[in-house]
Amino acid sequence: MKHLVLVSLWVLLLTGNVVAQEKVEKWDIFELTLKGPSTGNPFMGTVFSAKFSMGDSAFVQEGFYDGDGVYKIRFMPNKEGKWTYATTSNKTELNNKQGSFECTAATTSNHGPVRVKGVYHFQYEDGTSYKPFGTTIYEWPYQDAATKKQTIATLQSSPFNKARFLAVPPYKDRYVDGPLKITVFPFEGTSRDNFDFSRINPEYFKNLDECVMQLRNIGVEADLILFRPYDKGKWGFDMTGQEVNKMFARYMVARYAAYRNIWWSLCNENSFIRHMTDEDWDELFQLVQQKDPYHHLRSIHNADRIYDYNKPWVTHVSLQYYNVVKTPIGTPLLRDIYKKPVVNDEINYEGDIASRWGQLTGEEMVFRFWNALIGGGYATHGESYKSSPWISNGGGLIGSSPARIAFLRRIVEAGPAEGLEPIDQYYETNMAGKAGNYYLIYFGKESPANWDFVLPKRGMAAGIKFKVDVIDTWNMTITPLNEVYEVIPMPGSNYKFIDKNKASIRLPSKPYMALRIYKVGDGGKLKDDGKHELE
Amino acid sequence: MKHLVLVSLWVLLLTGNVVAQEKVEKWDIFELTLKGPSTGNPFMGTVFSAKFSMGDSAFVQEGFYDGDGVYKIRFMPNKEGKWTYATTSNKTELNNKQGSFECTAATTSNHGPVRVKGVYHFQYEDGTSYKPFGTTIYEWPYQDAATKKQTIATLQSSPFNKARFLAVPPYKDRYVDGPLKITVFPFEGTSRDNFDFSRINPEYFKNLDECVMQLRNIGVEADLILFRPYDKGKWGFDMTGQEVNKMFARYMVARYAAYRNIWWSLCNENSFIRHMTDEDWDELFQLVQQKDPYHHLRSIHNADRIYDYNKPWVTHVSLQYYNVVKTPIGTPLLRDIYKKPVVNDEINYEGDIASRWGQLTGEEMVFRFWNALIGGGYATHGESYKSSPWISNGGGLIGSSPARIAFLRRIVEAGPAEGLEPIDQYYETNMAGKAGNYYLIYFGKESPANWDFVLPKRGMAAGIKFKVDVIDTWNMTITPLNEVYEVIPMPGSNYKFIDKNKASIRLPSKPYMALRIYKVGDGGKLKDDGKHELE
Repeated sequence: MKHLVLVSLWVLLLTGNVVAQEKVEKWDIFELTLKGPSTGNPFMGTVFSAKFSMGDSAFVQEGFYDGDGVYKIRFMPNKEGKWTYATTSNKTELNNKQGSFECTAATTSNHGPVRVKGVYHFQYEDGTSYKPFGTTIYEWPYQDAATKKQTIATLQSSPFNKARFLAVPPYKDRYVDGPLKITVFPFEGTSRDNFDFSRINPEYFKNLDECVMQLRNIGVEADLILFRPYDKGKWGFDMTGQEVNKMFARYMVARYAAYRNIWWSLCNENSFIRHMTDEDWDELFQLVQQKDPYHHLRSIHNADRIYDYNKPWVTHVSLQYYNVVKTPIGTPLLRDIYKKPVVNDEINYEGDIASRWGQLTGEEMVFRFWNALIGGGYATHGESYKSSPWISNGGGLIGSSPARIAFLRRIVEAGPAEGLEPIDQYYETNMAGKAGNYYLIYFGKESPANWDFVLPKRGMAAGIKFKVDVIDTWNMTITPLNEVYEVIPMPGSNYKFIDKNKASIRLPSKPYMALRIYKVGDGGKLKDDGKHELE
Repeated sequence: MKHLVLVSLWVLLLTGNVVAQEKVEKWDIFELTLKGPSTGNPFMGTVFSAKFSMGDSAFVQEGFYDGDGVYKIRFMPNKEGKWTYATTSNKTELNNKQGSFECTAATTSNHGPVRVKGVYHFQYEDGTSYKPFGTTIYEWPYQDAATKKQTIATLQSSPFNKARFLAVPPYKDRYVDGPLKITVFPFEGTSRDNFDFSRINPEYFKNLDECVMQLRNIGVEADLILFRPYDKGKWGFDMTGQEVNKMFARYMVARYAAYRNIWWSLCNENSFIRHMTDEDWDELFQLVQQKDPYHHLRSIHNADRIYDYNKPWVTHVSLQYYNVVKTPIGTPLLRDIYKKPVVNDEINYEGDIASRWGQLTGEEMVFRFWNALIGGGYATHGESYKSSPWISNGGGLIGSSPARIAFLRRIVEAGPAEGLEPIDQYYETNMAGKAGNYYLIYFGKESPANWDFVLPKRGMAAGIKFKVDVIDTWNMTITPLNEVYEVIPMPGSNYKFIDKNKASIRLPSKPYMALRIYKVGDGGKLKDDGKHELE
């Protein structure tokens, strides 16, 4: 309820028609509220922005109309100290409003927005490691209050730190009639026959504001999907044409860019909006890129036509391509093609529905997650049981994969802070980590009885000592072995190092096993910061 | 020896300083030879081209200096009839030379240049199907005459219809001293100390002309590699700078574009030329695209940095990424990412050398080929035995894979003329063909004892009848089964059709097996053109 606390700090500044905070913590939202004209169409032709400055830093943030003659500008300061601002508008009441506020230190759980770190990974702006373990709750903002509350509680006790959901609901019978009937829409009007697509309906977004903020407050990134093809010719939100799309995207950026947990997902299954071309998406991407002063992450989620993630305005891959994660080789290939972080944002769902994309066993979901991580990328969860349509509604989770994904997340977060990297990817396809230091080897559906201690030469030197944990990824056990292994160049090989005693590690001949191999000091103790220990 | 025959047809036309043919068959080379200035630098600042016209068709083809005051223009006519031409030059002796020739019908084995067909496949310009089964003979032009002759003979009895090789030799001791010592270089000069990179050496290219022509005459496409990173700081051909690169590329296009079997491979392992950026390659691609009037195929072959094959001047993928073909899912992913034909142009080599890229068994090479084809793409062979360094020198082939690749090629060429397409690629990863009509199912390293007759619903209707051949891809046997299978929708499935008698086909529980399933008429006979029969 941080948002409500902030509201209570608001004070009147300057004249009677300006409301803003005096203090905001770093990466929180400074919100400037002004009274302005309520006549005409405030969504088209109104220019309204503010320049925020401190020292050498300056950001231009566009404002948005919030209904009833109220205009707002939301700004996310990224440095502590005194910020000043001045508005610019072609409406007199909104023009040249000046003021200042104090940006205070971020509180403990506030690490700022997530950024790309290096080429293939992420971190928060304050340098804290962030590794996306996402889930999918497309329509959660459109459920009843109890379900929404349950969703937040479920997320809090889950491994998931990113949620994909729709900024505009899909057309479904349940939203047309019954207790979940939607009466407030993103555009003015109530039905396909009377929507006025030249006018955003600000009232609609107050619920969405709260949803994004609730996720923020529990440390979950909001992978907010701006467009979607799910209108079946009914409401028509996916048929408004590019000028309306641009107005809508611009409004969304003005309204949500100051939320530090926002990721822009331009569209879900974009190619199912058949009349929109990749050039249309190029234009919307560039609009979002230009209007978002904080440069939140930007991607798009494909259906049958894959958008070119090489384009410079795309920050990471957000792919739907199940085959990529059926083997550990898929994700490294995508890394090499796109040279960006790879998030396999739809890998089929754990569930039992009639559609085959929602029929994964828990084992298969976890297997695909491991493949994504061992490939140096990430994956996103979904659950689609008949009795628990989490991917649509949120609510509770009943599947067997979340606990194992939590186990995987703990292992990954106890590993190299910079993320897992393929080590010898053209020849060792089931291994990732940090060469010479840390290795995760994942056997997937194989059931090996043993593993010979042989590792690629990259990062190796004779005499390096390792310890080994045997991991059962499904039963969630980690069994440390007592031995210390010391490597030497493998005789007769240009490419490998081997345990000097030719050790072979026994494995239980069952699937879903992994090994964690980490460098230790001379005494067999952990050499680095001890993060390799889980418990 | 077609080239020599053509030379004998040359006649003097117009004035004494112009030589050209009176007749040329379609897609053969019309060569115009003029005497011009031999002073100054004919490679820089000389403008020399000809416009060839017939009816609405017009091509502008640049000429090149061939040494000793001789200038040439090579033109590839694409229509029968009388072509006229006129030269343009800033040198008086080369300007405004006019003439005409007769283009006659193509002879039987001449199908024109290879083009992209549809999105993912190829065909010759005359509409004849072309499916690349390439091989690699990087340095074959630089061997002794007997080896070159042996290479051509080997290719003629091989399945290979495309050869990758270097337009400029790599720096190797054997080319610096001994019987293969190179004394004529692509640039004027004899060593790193005296190369004049402002001057091409036309004499060097006469051998290359002959090599490209010899391949053409046996129906092998010349995947000619313009640049390469193999100078080890010695000759310096990979360190000349972009202006010289552009001059060289332009010369190559002027000299070779009229050979119908040319494919432009901009570079081999381009990222190993560390100082050249992707923007440099963009520029060279665009130069080749602009200067080649016939629009031969264009690609580039990567090392550790993959060029963006989405760029519009790239006609097909020419990838080095071994993992793609370790499973059948890799190639469909590349098709979907790039929306172009995928040629896995380096998948490691069959051989026994110390380097691990040259240690494939024949079985593994064939397995990777099948994966590429089942993925709706193509692959390229190489052989690197200590006793038979085919990938470097050409000569003879001793490996076990070429015969199996020939067997695969016969199967593929007996299949759908339009090429193999994935049928239900997100869920059936080992199947390609033509939905409802023709299926190849490849079991790879699995050893199934049987296969239940279940196929994806795409293209299906109740009552369609199929016959089945069991294929042993390694032992090269095709065993037709007597039964006729008739499909019905699979009860309880939204996605499958099944044999109405729930047939299960017995398989021999060994690896490298495949099934060929093809639609037949009511009597169990082949329904279409009978191409499904191999023998």
